[in-house]
Amino acid sequence: MRRIAVDAMGGDRSPTVEISASLAAVRGAASLRVVLVGDEELIKDGLVRLGARHERRISVRHASQVIDMDDSPSRAVRAKRDSSMRACFELVKAGEADAIVSAGNSGAMLACALLVLGRIPGVLRPGIVTTFPTLRGACVLCDVGANVDPKPEVVAQLAVLGAAAAEVLLGRRRPRVGLLSNGEEESKGTARIREAHALIQSLARSPGAELEYVGPVEGKDVFGGQIDVLAADGFSGNVVLKTAEGAAQSFLDLLDQALSSSLMARVGAVLAGRAVRALRRRMDYAETGGAPLLGVRGVVVMAHGRSSPRALENAILAAQRHVDDGLTQKVAAAISRHAGVWSAMDDASVPGIKKGIGDEGRHDQ
Amino acid sequence: MRRIAVDAMGGDRSPTVEISASLAAVRGAASLRVVLVGDEELIKDGLVRLGARHERRISVRHASQVIDMDDSPSRAVRAKRDSSMRACFELVKAGEADAIVSAGNSGAMLACALLVLGRIPGVLRPGIVTTFPTLRGACVLCDVGANVDPKPEVVAQLAVLGAAAAEVLLGRRRPRVGLLSNGEEESKGTARIREAHALIQSLARSPGAELEYVGPVEGKDVFGGQIDVLAADGFSGNVVLKTAEGAAQSFLDLLDQALSSSLMARVGAVLAGRAVRALRRRMDYAETGGAPLLGVRGVVVMAHGRSSPRALENAILAAQRHVDDGLTQKVAAAISRHAGVWSAMDDASVPGIKKGIGDEGRHDQ
Repeated sequence: MRRIAVDAMGGDRSPTVEISASLAAVRGAASLRVVLVGDEELIKDGLVRLGARHERRISVRHASQVIDMDDSPSRAVRAKRDSSMRACFELVKAGEADAIVSAGNSGAMLACALLVLGRIPGVLRPGIVTTFPTLRGACVLCDVGANVDPKPEVVAQLAVLGAAAAEVLLGRRRPRVGLLSNGEEESKGTARIREAHALIQSLARSPGAELEYVGPVEGKDVFGGQIDVLAADGFSGNVVLKTAEGAAQSFLDLLDQALSSSLMARVGAVLAGRAVRALRRRMDYAETGGAPLLGVRGVVVMAHGRSSPRALENAILAAQRHVDDGLTQKVAAAISRHAGVWSAMDDASVPGIKKGIGDEGRHDQ
Repeated sequence: MRRIAVDAMGGDRSPTVEISASLAAVRGAASLRVVLVGDEELIKDGLVRLGARHERRISVRHASQVIDMDDSPSRAVRAKRDSSMRACFELVKAGEADAIVSAGNSGAMLACALLVLGRIPGVLRPGIVTTFPTLRGACVLCDVGANVDPKPEVVAQLAVLGAAAAEVLLGRRRPRVGLLSNGEEESKGTARIREAHALIQSLARSPGAELEYVGPVEGKDVFGGQIDVLAADGFSGNVVLKTAEGAAQSFLDLLDQALSSSLMARVGAVLAGRAVRALRRRMDYAETGGAPLLGVRGVVVMAHGRSSPRALENAILAAQRHVDDGLTQKVAAAISRHAGVWSAMDDASVPGIKKGIGDEGRHDQ
């Protein structure tokens, strides 16, 4: 039995979306329990309205405060000690839940994760992971926003976090990793990216490394199937994610326009309707539901503030799967495996790779 | 009569592609002359093979050297004084041509432009511009690679360059400008982007400003039609461009898969064929042909190294149009208009905005 703590207050349409998503999730998965965390009265009203007052596998945990989207993350986490979000993390810390799902302020989730759960030993900074559908499967993108202005060694470690995610989420042994740049030539990229490139090269060449480093790649390479992991600083990774989402939406709109542009096209669209609907589903990033935060001591899944019930249900089911698959343990193993690689490295040969370990860094969001 | 200097040696399939593109361009545009610059013998052989030995509006200018894709830009421009690329810029400087088109090393083009033509007064750094099709027209993206690690004031000026481009390329008065970030909140973004945001805000609020600043936006906003210009550092702008290209290609591949997945879908695809082909053309970034380099004293159009003859033809025609439309003069006017705004600003109120002027900076590519 897995117990998922769901922040019922974080999203744009809370708690309605969270309640119906939780109901759908427990009704579809026999081994799942959900703790809805937030304003007890609101949540219970919502459960009654949905005719689920007595759903045995949903419980409610009261929390009196809410972290808003425009709250400053680090301040809110400390000031609002009884926020629904923080209470979710406390439940996991206390062993009363196995994972956290929230559609709330992602910066505050990161701050909660660092403050309440803490990092896995050896992790410089956690990373947020998402997966992209490609023609030949999927590609993991790490990071999409936790590390906006990171040091090169943090970017190098995001490659390792992403590789661990690809092992668990895609079932890839020795995943192929690319580093996001503005060209494949080593001379391209910012100073940060060129330095991260040298670090990942050293990492990948060392004995014990369980990733294959393809080198610097471009934004388009996330779709081609040549790489399993795209490592990126959180700013550019976010740009890839949002651009792809926008492009997908715009293509579907253009397709609709095209398929209703003439009588023949409309007839064709009816005949091809099933195939086009399948395409639409495949390109709907909402379906994938949530982005895991890697590198902290626990399973944390971030959902979009505008999540539909369906997207949030998928995020809850993904959290359950990550617990089942031992995602946190596998990330810890990858980090400690590569930490061995790093400590075996000569500081002179890879300047800077170790200096950041243990450094709390600043909160980037 | 417009004379375009075409670097015949720069691309991946030179000079064949350049020759057929130039032929197609002059045959389609009565007021156009092309000077093909490069290995005279190779170019003349190519013209003979294409049955165009006596095409009056194509001339050949010999250049003995070629700048390769993996040459270091600044070194190659200085070391290879008789390169086909540099010779194109010298033709424009000498008044023997009105614009330059090359599918060669874009870093070397930037270096040539700075060295041979020089910047428009007041321009900190040139920017490379491209346009995206949106549901409601198009959006200008500036920069896509010239300024990989820019100072905040350079990013702010890229917004002005982009706005000038939107006026000329899209016919927009007071274009709406967004700044690429990882969220719409002012607290998001790198230190560079947050500082650029404050600078653009001041710029847009000042009397004489001819742009409307929307604020920080996300990668998806390039497609939505809410902005006419996306200002970005060259690294992230390149990520937007390449991600959109990759997403478009992957979408078209998925559409092909979907439309051949069943007999009904195949019949539907035949009926909707015309509409789908129109969609395909609209999404084919190759069709747009070339990206103008703004901020230098002359019309310079960069084409992709893998350009098709059709794409390169479009780049040549675009160069002709930019000369006709006075793109360079309009950029100069926008810069001088906003330079007035800047010098009126108190240094204390906008720290740093003026310190970069006249600073050559380092070559980012």
